[in-house]
Amino acid sequence: MAAPVIKALIFDVFGSVVDWRASIIREGQAVGKRYGIETDWAAFADGWRGLYQPAMARIRNGERDFVKLDVLHRENLVEMLAKTGITQLDEAAIDDFNHAWHRLAPWPDSVEGLTRLKSKHIIATQSNGNVALMVNMAKNAGLPWDTILGAEVVGYYKPQPQAYIRACEMLDLPRDQVMMSAAHNDDLAAAKACGLRTAFFPRKDRGPDQTAGLTPEHDFDYVATDLIDLARQLGC
Amino acid sequence: MAAPVIKALIFDVFGSVVDWRASIIREGQAVGKRYGIETDWAAFADGWRGLYQPAMARIRNGERDFVKLDVLHRENLVEMLAKTGITQLDEAAIDDFNHAWHRLAPWPDSVEGLTRLKSKHIIATQSNGNVALMVNMAKNAGLPWDTILGAEVVGYYKPQPQAYIRACEMLDLPRDQVMMSAAHNDDLAAAKACGLRTAFFPRKDRGPDQTAGLTPEHDFDYVATDLIDLARQLGC
Repeated sequence: MAAPVIKALIFDVFGSVVDWRASIIREGQAVGKRYGIETDWAAFADGWRGLYQPAMARIRNGERDFVKLDVLHRENLVEMLAKTGITQLDEAAIDDFNHAWHRLAPWPDSVEGLTRLKSKHIIATQSNGNVALMVNMAKNAGLPWDTILGAEVVGYYKPQPQAYIRACEMLDLPRDQVMMSAAHNDDLAAAKACGLRTAFFPRKDRGPDQTAGLTPEHDFDYVATDLIDLARQLGC
Repeated sequence: MAAPVIKALIFDVFGSVVDWRASIIREGQAVGKRYGIETDWAAFADGWRGLYQPAMARIRNGERDFVKLDVLHRENLVEMLAKTGITQLDEAAIDDFNHAWHRLAPWPDSVEGLTRLKSKHIIATQSNGNVALMVNMAKNAGLPWDTILGAEVVGYYKPQPQAYIRACEMLDLPRDQVMMSAAHNDDLAAAKACGLRTAFFPRKDRGPDQTAGLTPEHDFDYVATDLIDLARQLGC
């Protein structure tokens, strides 16, 4: 049975396309140097990221109306600064540190892989990041998206089914012609349950010692070593 | 007084970036040849486009909930086919003709002009066209958008103020750092009233005999001969 043609690839971004952890650690170190702050910036990055899912959970379960990720990131940053006793940053400095998420660096294969995939497919973000975050990151990192979809555009945070379904509707494509592409099993499993195609590639986005989540835990359509390998497998 | 820096240019597309009229006439002629239909395809194109504003007006004034432009275009096409007594097209052929709007050809300067503007600015659509229409058109015509905004993303049809305001909010930019760029005075005047910067460039998008609307009727920030000239004026 011939598989349906894949017209579009939609991507998880944090961790899958960009190395959020190394970037946030670097930005933290720069902040530390500038303001004379000594702290464990790797622990700070992990703590900041650790507040991400609980913050979205309150929106997913209806406790709170939708707000964009820049807002959640900033609230979580203020909480982390308080937790770690950092008091040197004024409001403008907090805003700037929060925009570190707009400046995350890509994995070494991301730009070439996406550029090759774009030659034959629509490529779009399907991230929980908001539009400005994704556009600024793309300009800074050279990510060649055809368009930005994701939480702010579709109105739902992954892994809610509507996040994936609305993305396919906006592209006006049947779900089996759209491939969710990510380094995270749970994201792909949720997309697969909605009828999308899936592509897994591992990333050590929780640090160099990460061992969990580096292999596919479901029957995904494609398993690749990175985005250049995925492009190769798709004939791009 | 130094003007604020322009961070993003957002674009009208139909008429301003692509030549909707010549493209729709060509697609009509191809349909006519295929199905043995004789009609005045220029009049058909003008009639089809003529139903565009009234269809959006019912949504703008609250008579009808928001639906995307592909839906309005198709309803208007069915109306035009009935008006002109064309009965040869089945549902699939009507869908395909409706997708002519996804295949509109750019003006000769559009791709180079946008590519140059993109080198220093965010460039995005702020069209009444929906996401799939704009993404497919961009892939087909080589338009290098950073992202697709516009009616389906922001939830309002131009020239409603919210259409322009929401685009700036999604880019997280002050309105005076965003420049609405278009060949249509009314579109630019509406954006200017919201505090956006404005760039006018003339297009004979209503046909070679067009004389109206080819000069700026308001005090716009930039007036250019085409998109390459606009890029030059902005130092790109």
